[in-house]
Amino acid sequence: MERGKWNLITDVPGVKVGHVTLYEQEGDECVCTGVTAILPHSRNLFEEKVTAAHFVLNGFGKTVGLVQVEELGVIESPIMLTNTFSVGAVLEGTLQYMLDENETIGDSTSSLNIVVGECNDSYLNSMRLMRVRPEHAIKAIQSAHSGPFTMGDVGAGKGMICYDRKGGIGSSSRIVNNEDVQYTVGVLALTNFGRKEECKIDEWLRKNGLHASHASNIKEADIDKPDGSVIIIVATDAPVNERQLKRLSKRAAIGLGRTGTHVHNGSGDIMIAFSNSQNVLHSSDSAVRTMDCLRDDHPVMNSMFEAVIEATEEAVYQSLLHAETVVGRKGRVIEKWPTIADGAQFNS
Amino acid sequence: MERGKWNLITDVPGVKVGHVTLYEQEGDECVCTGVTAILPHSRNLFEEKVTAAHFVLNGFGKTVGLVQVEELGVIESPIMLTNTFSVGAVLEGTLQYMLDENETIGDSTSSLNIVVGECNDSYLNSMRLMRVRPEHAIKAIQSAHSGPFTMGDVGAGKGMICYDRKGGIGSSSRIVNNEDVQYTVGVLALTNFGRKEECKIDEWLRKNGLHASHASNIKEADIDKPDGSVIIIVATDAPVNERQLKRLSKRAAIGLGRTGTHVHNGSGDIMIAFSNSQNVLHSSDSAVRTMDCLRDDHPVMNSMFEAVIEATEEAVYQSLLHAETVVGRKGRVIEKWPTIADGAQFNS
Amino acid sequence: MERGKWNLITDVPGVKVGHVTLYEQEGDECVCTGVTAILPHSRNLFEEKVTAAHFVLNGFGKTVGLVQVEELGVIESPIMLTNTFSVGAVLEGTLQYMLDENETIGDSTSSLNIVVGECNDSYLNSMRLMRVRPEHAIKAIQSAHSGPFTMGDVGAGKGMICYDRKGGIGSSSRIVNNEDVQYTVGVLALTNFGRKEECKIDEWLRKNGLHASHASNIKEADIDKPDGSVIIIVATDAPVNERQLKRLSKRAAIGLGRTGTHVHNGSGDIMIAFSNSQNVLHSSDSAVRTMDCLRDDHPVMNSMFEAVIEATEEAVYQSLLHAETVVGRKGRVIEKWPTIADGAQFNS
Amino acid sequence: MERGKWNLITDVPGVKVGHVTLYEQEGDECVCTGVTAILPHSRNLFEEKVTAAHFVLNGFGKTVGLVQVEELGVIESPIMLTNTFSVGAVLEGTLQYMLDENETIGDSTSSLNIVVGECNDSYLNSMRLMRVRPEHAIKAIQSAHSGPFTMGDVGAGKGMICYDRKGGIGSSSRIVNNEDVQYTVGVLALTNFGRKEECKIDEWLRKNGLHASHASNIKEADIDKPDGSVIIIVATDAPVNERQLKRLSKRAAIGLGRTGTHVHNGSGDIMIAFSNSQNVLHSSDSAVRTMDCLRDDHPVMNSMFEAVIEATEEAVYQSLLHAETVVGRKGRVIEKWPTIADGAQFNS
Repeated sequence: MERGKWNLITDVPGVKVGHVTLYEQEGDECVCTGVTAILPHSRNLFEEKVTAAHFVLNGFGKTVGLVQVEELGVIESPIMLTNTFSVGAVLEGTLQYMLDENETIGDSTSSLNIVVGECNDSYLNSMRLMRVRPEHAIKAIQSAHSGPFTMGDVGAGKGMICYDRKGGIGSSSRIVNNEDVQYTVGVLALTNFGRKEECKIDEWLRKNGLHASHASNIKEADIDKPDGSVIIIVATDAPVNERQLKRLSKRAAIGLGRTGTHVHNGSGDIMIAFSNSQNVLHSSDSAVRTMDCLRDDHPVMNSMFEAVIEATEEAVYQSLLHAETVVGRKGRVIEKWPTIADGAQFNS
Repeated sequence: MERGKWNLITDVPGVKVGHVTLYEQEGDECVCTGVTAILPHSRNLFEEKVTAAHFVLNGFGKTVGLVQVEELGVIESPIMLTNTFSVGAVLEGTLQYMLDENETIGDSTSSLNIVVGECNDSYLNSMRLMRVRPEHAIKAIQSAHSGPFTMGDVGAGKGMICYDRKGGIGSSSRIVNNEDVQYTVGVLALTNFGRKEECKIDEWLRKNGLHASHASNIKEADIDKPDGSVIIIVATDAPVNERQLKRLSKRAAIGLGRTGTHVHNGSGDIMIAFSNSQNVLHSSDSAVRTMDCLRDDHPVMNSMFEAVIEATEEAVYQSLLHAETVVGRKGRVIEKWPTIADGAQFNS
Repeated sequence: MERGKWNLITDVPGVKVGHVTLYEQEGDECVCTGVTAILPHSRNLFEEKVTAAHFVLNGFGKTVGLVQVEELGVIESPIMLTNTFSVGAVLEGTLQYMLDENETIGDSTSSLNIVVGECNDSYLNSMRLMRVRPEHAIKAIQSAHSGPFTMGDVGAGKGMICYDRKGGIGSSSRIVNNEDVQYTVGVLALTNFGRKEECKIDEWLRKNGLHASHASNIKEADIDKPDGSVIIIVATDAPVNERQLKRLSKRAAIGLGRTGTHVHNGSGDIMIAFSNSQNVLHSSDSAVRTMDCLRDDHPVMNSMFEAVIEATEEAVYQSLLHAETVVGRKGRVIEKWPTIADGAQFNS
Repeated sequence: MERGKWNLITDVPGVKVGHVTLYEQEGDECVCTGVTAILPHSRNLFEEKVTAAHFVLNGFGKTVGLVQVEELGVIESPIMLTNTFSVGAVLEGTLQYMLDENETIGDSTSSLNIVVGECNDSYLNSMRLMRVRPEHAIKAIQSAHSGPFTMGDVGAGKGMICYDRKGGIGSSSRIVNNEDVQYTVGVLALTNFGRKEECKIDEWLRKNGLHASHASNIKEADIDKPDGSVIIIVATDAPVNERQLKRLSKRAAIGLGRTGTHVHNGSGDIMIAFSNSQNVLHSSDSAVRTMDCLRDDHPVMNSMFEAVIEATEEAVYQSLLHAETVVGRKGRVIEKWPTIADGAQFNS
């Protein structure tokens, strides 16, 4: 399928991404982590909630906010990513940001649900130090922008490890054409899972006609670490409702599986999908709202499924192809992926 | 059914409860909130996890930690309760407590899942000030103890409103006798839901043979507030597995429904159940663990269901019967429940 | 809340109900069972599917068709009720009916999902004889009609036992007023659960200002039978989507719990809800369909919840108040409910 | 990973498989369908239930029995597979078989839950004729046996189409070694899904070191049919509980995704997993039962996940590699898979 202009989640109109990266060696310790914010659209997210759903492929994870997403079918905050022990701080920072933007939340109107996903970066990052603070979350939100953004060892991805090599943030997009209209599907992945012998990137490169060579001087990865996790964010501007977004989320799991992982016990593999095509207003005089949604049996729905699978698979690989070698705590080194594949970023 | 000695969740051997209550008038603002910690047993919860499950009756809530409870069927931290905007701080404080107690978490062993439930106390509490800090969570855990504990407008319940009157923390227990052995079922409720015209407490008092009279000087409640929430914690020492604990959780929802609520849109009504009868060790050389569980078709299971329903219903009422009138922000007053019912605490 | 004209599920415009009752003594055996068909609207259900959802309170049951209801959010057949061992025959009969009506199903277009609910009537009915045949399902569908229908020991309810007395089919409805428009909520219950000491009908009668007396000559029920089941069908003409219908389904569980049951282990307690306000066409040239739905935070939604709870509670009681004493296999007798309560049918 | 002796689900000790195949041309019509029975063990399944769980990847399907599997965590009947319109007949036949074997079911003891999976074979099979009758289900159960069984266009797979070529029944197994003990994971797939351009069989053959050539005289598939479905049955003798079996089911979905499908809208993709390592007795005097289960964090659990993924992927391919070209209704022909791969059956 055709990729979007940047081959990024930001190809979905209105979606913004921002990173804050923390990296500091302190003797044997190393702060090697960060925060990534995905803004579903560019306006006030509390006032204009996006339709959303999720799927838990493997629930060994601490993602926050999914109970209410399931019940109400909306997301009303930026979607935040960070390390496992910084969920509390990021939750608090994001809340503060939203309170500052919306004076009535928790006063004259209802409370607010915030979504924070996480992976465990404790192999490289001194996670017990909890150095991500609320202001880092605020800064990640404020720095979010449309268009191209950095991938790899950046933001929440700074300390993440994927298939025993340096992972982190990856993204990809696909265009779904349907008669007169077209929709965009974008995926952002925070990758921190898998063992190198599982990875199917070579098959994927071959399928995409890419000539892959190996970088010299990359050592053999041989690390003993806990199972990791992965958070997949699926964005679209197609008119789909919360039930259909759950269907998309499940296809994201299939795309993840394509990359080779066995979905290890300790890997919190969580998919969150939203559509910003038609938002749910927080306040309205009307008792009724009207919503368009794609017909499930229209061929465009199968194309949407295909787009999610392809973009998810590719987003994982982009995290590998963009991350650089990182030195973390205790002098631990995670090498970058040894494959050099010119043109594999597929952006225009 | 027979009640436990204290008619409290702490009748389940090993269960401890602790509160930290914050109350301070600051001009028009009022800090009127707190933290409540429920410790499933008295040992290291990370090393000895308890079997657990949950049920979401209405997911308009921000409870943290349920994704992993569902996947792994265990709880490995204190269960914390607080107000909606303090989830982040309580998460961080509880994490800090657990990290101090377990030096390997997030270093040489895996990460940690923390469960925090919440209700919105913003009618009385200046929730936007976020005055609950991590240390309050730690203090609530440290203050937890076996045996009798305070109910009503205390801990996380300080600012809560139930059936338009002062609610907060309520608890009750039941004894399930089965031939030679007996099990205890205990429930703790954080109540913050309902409209006064729905409440069925008078029917319950009558059924329990209690003479109810009305306190004088209690004004008619007439408040306009957002829908509230309720968190129900079910504890038992019966040998039940995670699937069966989910069944118990659903019965807790039925018990809640008995009190009259229509389970309003904005009410996050969440049930969490655990058994501390046989714990899951964090570390073990063995590939296999052995577990006893009650047979689903044994009459004792129906008795367990009945116990959960009765104790949940009564826990809600106990929150009403114990709470005192509270003055909150903007001079708002929530009166205590007008019914006086001698003996309704049912403890021995 | 105000009841509908007939206080029946058929107060929801378009909904039809039909029964086929089988009753025949054959020595020690007794065929004492039947089929009940609920038609969500009066047109071709395959061509115009209704939005639908379900909730499983206790899954000790064999209801058919819910997997697809969950995935697609629609029901595309009559909803059929029968005894546990006749699900296959009723499935086949309903399929035959739908195939005759739609020549393309399973030929040039897709297949068909049929919903069949069941309860175990084997205390009275010689269920092992499997005397319900496909034609009985067809006949039940064909006999379905708008307006008043028989309740009690009729159709699928012929052999059912509720709270140790004769149960079966009960129904009730409520009117939800919202500014200029009004919606109807109708419930039909197939009741086959509970123990007499649990039943809260007397509280309900009292609350409704009814004078209840006891019929003479009704013997004390003292039966030893397996736990039963209950199927609750919720119908509405309010514009609600599948997620919201799941919310309504959960409130039906609360309404059921109000009647006193402890939701016994062996009781398959299943709630199915549909809205016929705006149907999903099987065939369409368009990729997009438009749907109205109520705002979750509008007060009318809480009124919908209240309507579902009240109508479910009352539907259960109506099944008791309408059923007559029935003699089943092995000469077993299940007496009718001993309460006489003039005016309790509440139809106009 | 190492395969079992026959590379079949029957490598799991006790598991039996039986087929009944119906094939008859009648003018333009063609009966081209059947029934497949999987017996989780060789004894009385009602008396000794197996632990079980399921996962619905895509719920556009009519599988029967999953509600109770979810609630109680057991399967108590043969698992039956057939075409979509024969679910009723197969349900009835299986019930009859179980009633004949257990005189107390539906009389003095409880009822029975039967699991029937289905796919839509209406492209080749005159499914509307409903020629599968209850006796075919009984015969399939009676013909079930240990050891090798036929794959491809046989039993329920007779009329199925996979990746636009002839599919049907496929199976594979893996051995999981864990210190002193070893467990077997077996998968049986009923394949009826996908488009030929999606299929990744060539990658799989290459990875397995197989030389693949193309059969001559195989025409290009070019069919226009509804989306299909797939039922995956996962069996093991490892001691795992119902929660863990759900985890295995989700890995089966990942294995399916590896074969290339986009999980089309109309494809009912359902995974059912059971363990026959320790059965749940229907009758017992004891209130408590004891169960072993693998520790989730033991490396053997990740090996189990890997085994499920590998065996599922391979079971799908085995269905392709074993099926022969079939002529169905209206003279429609579905060609066998064009690849010849000597040794690809991998049985010993």
